[in-house]
Amino acid sequence: MRTLNAADLSLNTATVSKQWTLEECIEGCKRHGIGGISPWRDKLQECGIDRAAKLIREAGLGVSGLCRGGWYTAEGALTQNVIDDNKRAVDEAAAIGAETLVMVVGGLPEGSKDIVAAREIVTEGLARTLEYARTQGVRIGIEPLHPMYAADRACVNTTGQALDICDKLGDGIGVALDVYHIWWDPEIAAQIRRAGKERIHAFHVCDWMSPTRDMLTDRGMMGEGVIDIPSFRQMVEAEGFDGLVEVEIFSAENWWKKPADDVLAAMVNALPSI
Amino acid sequence: MRTLNAADLSLNTATVSKQWTLEECIEGCKRHGIGGISPWRDKLQECGIDRAAKLIREAGLGVSGLCRGGWYTAEGALTQNVIDDNKRAVDEAAAIGAETLVMVVGGLPEGSKDIVAAREIVTEGLARTLEYARTQGVRIGIEPLHPMYAADRACVNTTGQALDICDKLGDGIGVALDVYHIWWDPEIAAQIRRAGKERIHAFHVCDWMSPTRDMLTDRGMMGEGVIDIPSFRQMVEAEGFDGLVEVEIFSAENWWKKPADDVLAAMVNALPSI
Repeated sequence: MRTLNAADLSLNTATVSKQWTLEECIEGCKRHGIGGISPWRDKLQECGIDRAAKLIREAGLGVSGLCRGGWYTAEGALTQNVIDDNKRAVDEAAAIGAETLVMVVGGLPEGSKDIVAAREIVTEGLARTLEYARTQGVRIGIEPLHPMYAADRACVNTTGQALDICDKLGDGIGVALDVYHIWWDPEIAAQIRRAGKERIHAFHVCDWMSPTRDMLTDRGMMGEGVIDIPSFRQMVEAEGFDGLVEVEIFSAENWWKKPADDVLAAMVNALPSI
Repeated sequence: MRTLNAADLSLNTATVSKQWTLEECIEGCKRHGIGGISPWRDKLQECGIDRAAKLIREAGLGVSGLCRGGWYTAEGALTQNVIDDNKRAVDEAAAIGAETLVMVVGGLPEGSKDIVAAREIVTEGLARTLEYARTQGVRIGIEPLHPMYAADRACVNTTGQALDICDKLGDGIGVALDVYHIWWDPEIAAQIRRAGKERIHAFHVCDWMSPTRDMLTDRGMMGEGVIDIPSFRQMVEAEGFDGLVEVEIFSAENWWKKPADDVLAAMVNALPSI
């Protein structure tokens, strides 16, 4: 494995979402020597797309992703509204030069118990977005989310399932792998090999706390929890992944309450745990 | 699918664990026309094994399972202590004529981040217990637990993974399928077919609440949540499963606070949702 430095890290803005604007995130990355950023769309829009693109470029930061497109089941059947919003997400990803547009695909439609149907809606939605993304030179990265989010966030829950969709849809679509979501998967080693370099669009890290006190916002800094993160980095690097390692931590009771500069310092200090 | 009646249900004692002793559960099943019971070992031991066996037999109840053996990683490496406790669980399952000894296999050993090693400990432990169980005519049912329990309860998290272990260990071992743990699995239909009648030892129902407010104790009565339970019953019955449908609900804030007779009445009322 390569030796990681701060310059190999990317700050997902969710990690300090309660503390900083995008502009402050960019400045913070520069101060801490962090090499990349991955904005959420709300922060990006708040800053202004063109202005954000300019600030990121001037700061010399890589852009490991844009979070997030998807949510295809938000209005039940796939609507023009949802398709259009995903087109805008593609445009935004293109504007900031993101390595991938990360897709959180959406869970069960309101009132539905049909996860099979939800998955069909998602596949159709991804196909529609991909068609447009190809014309804009943007790559689509499906993020398989932990199965505990199947109902309310994403009905694509394993890397294998995501790759089945990629197989079906062809070029320009791959996976955004977050150790938080995949660490438990008994098939993960084989599926990472199956993905290969071309389809590993992003590698996200944080840690699984044991016990976990909140299903969404109790994620840990790398090293705080039970995930053998280096084993996963080894798997993706064995396939040739050499991109930024993106740090995305949702932590209502801990990291979101700390001064953001302390969080970025902790990220850099956690390098040996990645 | 067959038409379900109260007599086709089995009460897992966890459903009313805060309200009733095993003896009260047995009386309650009789009152509500529920056909079977599945004790947890604490309730069984509290009652006394022989006395419990006699009471269950006299009540004419089926025994859909004994919860639970396993927890092979409790002491790190597989210890004699853990092996012996599982032998006692086999003896208890035999004494009450349980259809299967349900295995919650255990999560990561204290301080460990090595889920691959944990799975090896579990497979070895299951092999040891199975060897003894065969001599006692007891079937072992691995319960794949939802991936959100991989760290702290069970590192066997999919039906496919459990069946891989069954394939390796041979006769007398199968799966205990709980819709709560498997409903999200994109491979589940194929894996239930793969299991077949001989290896589907138990079928547990409850519901997934959306949102879920606690990772362990916020499970719903059938129909309250988002699981298409009949679709899963159809899958297991298509394989020939004709056993008791076991109701196991952990619900700290709702069902555990109600009078247990109301809970049993609600189970019977929920038959159309199964």
